Amino acid sequence: MALDNTWYSEQWAGQGSAISLKIEHKLHDEHSAYQRIEIYETEGFGTLMTLDGLVMVTDRDNFVYHEMMSHPALFTHTNPRKVLIIGGGDCGTLHEVLKHPGVEQVCQVELDERVTRVAEQYFPELCASNHDPRAQLRFADGIQWVAEATAQSYDVIIVDGTDPIGPAAGLFSEAFYKNCWQALRPGGIIVGQSESPLFHAELICAMHKALHGAGFKEVRTLHFPQCTYPSGWWSATLAGKDKPVSHFREEAAARKGFATRYYHKEIHKAAMILPEFLNKLLVVSG
Amino acid sequence: MALDNTWYSEQWAGQGSAISLKIEHKLHDEHSAYQRIEIYETEGFGTLMTLDGLVMVTDRDNFVYHEMMSHPALFTHTNPRKVLIIGGGDCGTLHEVLKHPGVEQVCQVELDERVTRVAEQYFPELCASNHDPRAQLRFADGIQWVAEATAQSYDVIIVDGTDPIGPAAGLFSEAFYKNCWQALRPGGIIVGQSESPLFHAELICAMHKALHGAGFKEVRTLHFPQCTYPSGWWSATLAGKDKPVSHFREEAAARKGFATRYYHKEIHKAAMILPEFLNKLLVVSG
Repeated sequence: MALDNTWYSEQWAGQGSAISLKIEHKLHDEHSAYQRIEIYETEGFGTLMTLDGLVMVTDRDNFVYHEMMSHPALFTHTNPRKVLIIGGGDCGTLHEVLKHPGVEQVCQVELDERVTRVAEQYFPELCASNHDPRAQLRFADGIQWVAEATAQSYDVIIVDGTDPIGPAAGLFSEAFYKNCWQALRPGGIIVGQSESPLFHAELICAMHKALHGAGFKEVRTLHFPQCTYPSGWWSATLAGKDKPVSHFREEAAARKGFATRYYHKEIHKAAMILPEFLNKLLVVSG
Repeated sequence: MALDNTWYSEQWAGQGSAISLKIEHKLHDEHSAYQRIEIYETEGFGTLMTLDGLVMVTDRDNFVYHEMMSHPALFTHTNPRKVLIIGGGDCGTLHEVLKHPGVEQVCQVELDERVTRVAEQYFPELCASNHDPRAQLRFADGIQWVAEATAQSYDVIIVDGTDPIGPAAGLFSEAFYKNCWQALRPGGIIVGQSESPLFHAELICAMHKALHGAGFKEVRTLHFPQCTYPSGWWSATLAGKDKPVSHFREEAAARKGFATRYYHKEIHKAAMILPEFLNKLLVVSG
């Protein structure tokens, strides 16, 4: 019953639970200036990247997360041309964003350049658009980047960071969201990964409150399965600077003209329907 | 990184992955005539029951599965009065079914009486309706039960069995579905748990084919998160004897008059929207 050391295990902090992936061999192991980056070849999930021992991405299941972090926000905005990605070092979200032909420029601000360089080596499919002339890869502190950004300079901001502990904690603060609000053009939209509905429902509520507090007009959470993230169930939270985010360009989503494996027009609508317990919590917490 | 023996681990067969729950202590361990039944107190998920080392139910996350195995089928049927549950020994599905005041009789046919007796001891909330006068607990082989059932005797059949290996394999066969079709009254509905969309998409396709082959008019799969089942993502597949199952009694679901934690009218509709990859597979496989 016990798992020997041929398994990589991530304990889900504070939840008394863990996911494990059977390892064939380790491909890479380094300590960057910010964190430990490891790459494994797994038996069932293809290539795996971990940062400080936490699963970031696997070949097998990353499509759900990356599609749901990008397409709902981009089809909700009426005409997204300039996009900012905070974090997103594996470049999977960038790859999805660049599938939208109307997007003119995507600036990705990842703290740790080594994450991206290692991803380019081991996740070539996720990094296939890194040399798209519309992509700008910057390696800097995303919180500072947004604080110093020109007002009204982005249409969509995607916060594709790690868990709200350590350096990424600031990505869930009202102060950060206020700066994002400033950096967004009229009609602008922010979307951030918002953890597990089962494990972190209170964090989702706090995020709604912080986004409202920062001035965003409407906040909506979408949920989706994500096998290798804590609880196997994940969420993204959208907010509109000055417009609601409940509706999206359904016609455009229906005729999107690019391939997806999880996202489509109807799944976009379905993902916005939250379970009863989460609806209740969000009402209570305002 | 390795998990010591204070963790219970279930390896997800053939998937190179596993879930683990931190154990506080073991409460019960027996070998019944059919299988090994263990009960643990866990750190993060309350009480856990395993059968032959596979997670069956935990306090924390069973509500999603039990609600989605019962309410969609019961609100799809126009007037469900007589319900048959095959398996379901932990009685959580039975408890949900009996929330419907129109249900007059629920017969539950579980192979292993010990599963139910142990559940009564350790999962009293799931077994709270076992003494409802409408409930009949039978301990017998469900496959044989359906084969010998009076034709047109049930409105809804719920197949709440284990994975399609060993004794439960027959619960996924066309022969079994043919017997269910016979046992259903006009307007009748079958629903069965249909494993993980990520891990077992081919099984879902095969199940659609087998249900169609058995004479069912329309087949629909619903998906939902289920943290402690393989991949954290699970499904249930509904089929109508002679009527479609795409529509349900929305008005009744909206005014259901009983508490749920996951299910509600809109989540019912949302759960029927499948991801792109599964839609494609189901089209290809007919």
